[in-house]
Amino acid sequence: MGKGRLEAFSDGVIAIIITIMVLELKVPHDASLEALKHLAPVFLSYILSFIYVGIYWNNHHHMLHAVKSVTGATLWANLFLLFWLSLIPFVTAWMGENHFAKWPVICYGAVLIMNAIAYTILAKQLINHHGENSVLAHAIGSDTKGKISVGIYATAIAVSFIHPWLGFGLYFIVACIWFIPDRRIERTMRNDEHPFNN
Amino acid sequence: MGKGRLEAFSDGVIAIIITIMVLELKVPHDASLEALKHLAPVFLSYILSFIYVGIYWNNHHHMLHAVKSVTGATLWANLFLLFWLSLIPFVTAWMGENHFAKWPVICYGAVLIMNAIAYTILAKQLINHHGENSVLAHAIGSDTKGKISVGIYATAIAVSFIHPWLGFGLYFIVACIWFIPDRRIERTMRNDEHPFNN
Amino acid sequence: MGKGRLEAFSDGVIAIIITIMVLELKVPHDASLEALKHLAPVFLSYILSFIYVGIYWNNHHHMLHAVKSVTGATLWANLFLLFWLSLIPFVTAWMGENHFAKWPVICYGAVLIMNAIAYTILAKQLINHHGENSVLAHAIGSDTKGKISVGIYATAIAVSFIHPWLGFGLYFIVACIWFIPDRRIERTMRNDEHPFNN
Amino acid sequence: MGKGRLEAFSDGVIAIIITIMVLELKVPHDASLEALKHLAPVFLSYILSFIYVGIYWNNHHHMLHAVKSVTGATLWANLFLLFWLSLIPFVTAWMGENHFAKWPVICYGAVLIMNAIAYTILAKQLINHHGENSVLAHAIGSDTKGKISVGIYATAIAVSFIHPWLGFGLYFIVACIWFIPDRRIERTMRNDEHPFNN
Repeated sequence: MGKGRLEAFSDGVIAIIITIMVLELKVPHDASLEALKHLAPVFLSYILSFIYVGIYWNNHHHMLHAVKSVTGATLWANLFLLFWLSLIPFVTAWMGENHFAKWPVICYGAVLIMNAIAYTILAKQLINHHGENSVLAHAIGSDTKGKISVGIYATAIAVSFIHPWLGFGLYFIVACIWFIPDRRIERTMRNDEHPFNN
Repeated sequence: MGKGRLEAFSDGVIAIIITIMVLELKVPHDASLEALKHLAPVFLSYILSFIYVGIYWNNHHHMLHAVKSVTGATLWANLFLLFWLSLIPFVTAWMGENHFAKWPVICYGAVLIMNAIAYTILAKQLINHHGENSVLAHAIGSDTKGKISVGIYATAIAVSFIHPWLGFGLYFIVACIWFIPDRRIERTMRNDEHPFNN
Repeated sequence: MGKGRLEAFSDGVIAIIITIMVLELKVPHDASLEALKHLAPVFLSYILSFIYVGIYWNNHHHMLHAVKSVTGATLWANLFLLFWLSLIPFVTAWMGENHFAKWPVICYGAVLIMNAIAYTILAKQLINHHGENSVLAHAIGSDTKGKISVGIYATAIAVSFIHPWLGFGLYFIVACIWFIPDRRIERTMRNDEHPFNN
Repeated sequence: MGKGRLEAFSDGVIAIIITIMVLELKVPHDASLEALKHLAPVFLSYILSFIYVGIYWNNHHHMLHAVKSVTGATLWANLFLLFWLSLIPFVTAWMGENHFAKWPVICYGAVLIMNAIAYTILAKQLINHHGENSVLAHAIGSDTKGKISVGIYATAIAVSFIHPWLGFGLYFIVACIWFIPDRRIERTMRNDEHPFNN
């Protein structure tokens, strides 16, 4: 089965997710600069989530770029990822509107962990389908970066019980780690002119 | 007429439908875990509908994959399906916010029945266009799965008068039946290298 | 310039327009069937607009199908059409929520007239670009159907001063006239194997 | 890396941005023509932003049309532009609802400046990737139009302290300057049959 529609549908859903988050930046009824300052935490929360959804789109783009075809199981693994991505606007707004209070920050981390797991499932499904010698398998490798991220998310949840800003800081650090798109795939593909014939 | 834009437009509409449902998960003004618990029925309702819309997207994907071209009538049959899909966010929110009360659960079932009918009309239209010997006609066959679904939906509506959770349970069972994408089409296409030349 | 991205962008905007209209079907806080009845005018308004936006998508699809390339002016003519289409959700909601009162029904008609004009401008721009002997020029011809529609819209606005339901009825009649997609283009293309070489 | 998905994702996000702005045209509960008049500033603000987002889409379309491939850095430069575009609906609504008061008009200008900067970064990144002799480099040239725009935006912000309508007027003038899509690229491509082989 071709991957075109899977990419198109994912692009559509991710485009909507990244855009509807801005609807939580509720327009103040007041025209003063003061009114804008009250939106600062919601805005900060929006920036973090925009980066995260951007990272997922970039990596999704790279991953799908490296595969040749998809199966029925891929469609469901992909929908599972989209489901958890779709919860990001909710936790983003909850965290921002409550000025980074404990439980919203913890739930934000829980949703990030679920997204990381869903992304790993999708990657594993695609590797199973294309074989252990495929370019994707070489590129993902032991997925150290993914494992470290989940570890930091879990730590962030734990330290949020001490102070939620510590958790938020760790989420930001993971975003910085992933900021650079998954070069592994780009690099592996360059080294390997005919990716799926090896 | 090519099927590309029909797929692109359907992908867009379905992507929006599956994503705007999350807007009904209203962000609580309270940062407590308690506030989140009140959202549990809305969340449960969201999960069920996410699965249903996901199923429709998967099956739509498979069905359009199996056809070569579309006609003006296909565009309208497809819009009829999109119309009923567009009502899913409404009944999802109504059912969730009213904690699975009788009438919302019944209306949810009625919308599911209309979606099933609209999908059947689209399938029949495509089979008419491509002929009784086409891969799609072989794949859909007597559409036992579709007929059983409508039967279960009707039963669900009936038992919702006794207790709405019985109806909800039956909707969940149908979702499980369809969880596996329409393998019939995949299988038939594999058996049949040149699908439309037979 | 290729027409691919123009189609993709238009599909995206029209998909969003047709879907956000359903957000005006505000979920009742009440689980009774009675609560649903209050939504009847909003629902009726939604159905009419869904058909209209569907008609515009279908005809847009047919028109772009018949052209080979677009220019910078086409992009702006297309955006002008999308602008007026984007006002349909607003007048739809205003008309539905006010139970088809006079001014909302008149404004609905005014927006329909502007859409018809914008569509004509787009068609004329494309015909200018492709020449008077192009398949599109033959297909559109003297555009009798378009002219009749504008005439009926104007009549509908006039009779809405007597009773708005008369206006609404006329909008419905125009929708029925256009329900059949623009067969002229399909027919002309069939008669004419190499559309742009004549 | 192919540019197809970058275009598709950008089309999706821009389509949503241009469409959700209309949601700020809150449906009046009143059916009188008077109620509509109160929406005039929101509507005027919507028109200006529709034109701006339309300009960005057109120019984005032209720029991507002139390039052959994208890199990981392009994806992020593009997301940076989409981030600032996503803030346009917010400042549009704030400006409209507060009847073009001082601070909203100034913030609108600040967001326009950030969009202009983000667009320049994206252009520079693509020129770096394709080389100083590429068609894109020739087309953009010294980017006088872009520099003049930022100058006018800055002036608009300054004069908004005197009277915000002066600022609004200048925003409108910049929109008029850009109304014509980036002909430079179209012209350069025509003069240069094999754009990337020179």
